[in-house]
Amino acid sequence: MPVEMKLSRIIISEINENQYVYLKEVNGERQFPIVIGIFEATSIDRRIKKVERPRPLTHDLIISVVEMLGGALHSVIITELSSKTYYAKLRLRSDGELIEIDARPSDAIAVAVTNDPPLPIWIDENVLEDALASQ
Amino acid sequence: MPVEMKLSRIIISEINENQYVYLKEVNGERQFPIVIGIFEATSIDRRIKKVERPRPLTHDLIISVVEMLGGALHSVIITELSSKTYYAKLRLRSDGELIEIDARPSDAIAVAVTNDPPLPIWIDENVLEDALASQ
Repeated sequence: MPVEMKLSRIIISEINENQYVYLKEVNGERQFPIVIGIFEATSIDRRIKKVERPRPLTHDLIISVVEMLGGALHSVIITELSSKTYYAKLRLRSDGELIEIDARPSDAIAVAVTNDPPLPIWIDENVLEDALASQ
Repeated sequence: MPVEMKLSRIIISEINENQYVYLKEVNGERQFPIVIGIFEATSIDRRIKKVERPRPLTHDLIISVVEMLGGALHSVIITELSSKTYYAKLRLRSDGELIEIDARPSDAIAVAVTNDPPLPIWIDENVLEDALASQ
């Protein structure tokens, strides 16, 4: 069963190459960090803080592409944790079909928080358990 | 009339916030730089050098989204230079129609060089003249 998560914290360090986003259960207390790059961390942080962007940034462009091609963003799901790497899928609707596209969690979460309204973020229960066990 | 351009140089400076890509005429010698951010510059540089990427990066995700929604990437065009900012459009084909999506030149060029085969990059002749005059 998938569990719905929300972004609970972003930790950006200028002296460290790895940045962290924390996902926390919407209906519970379980949470875990995902290591992401500085670009994606900054991109997510700007959305959360609603920093004005005069030009469409990269994740805005993804949303425009989906809309212009007649699709609709649906949700994000984190599907796997393998060798300390998380795998995710961006889910779209198109012509009544649900399409899943392989993405890094950082991009998927950046798209989720950029979309208006934000997309729900899901994780498979067994992946959540693996994430908690690996902390 | 649009003029076809190609990426001729990328200058990445670690001590400077602004990075440069140079576009040069395919059938001529005119060229000019565009200032871009470090993320996009690194992304473009990796494509040019064909650095292996185990996971899809942000511009790969844009290409997957287009393909999964049944569109086809067509080209990039730089359409305007205003207050030192360049404006571009990513052009897609979908159901026989040509769709133009507003994008920063850095993202548009990153998508162009990520695509296989690379997308042609065009610039309006008057924008090229403005670009050369503003150097």
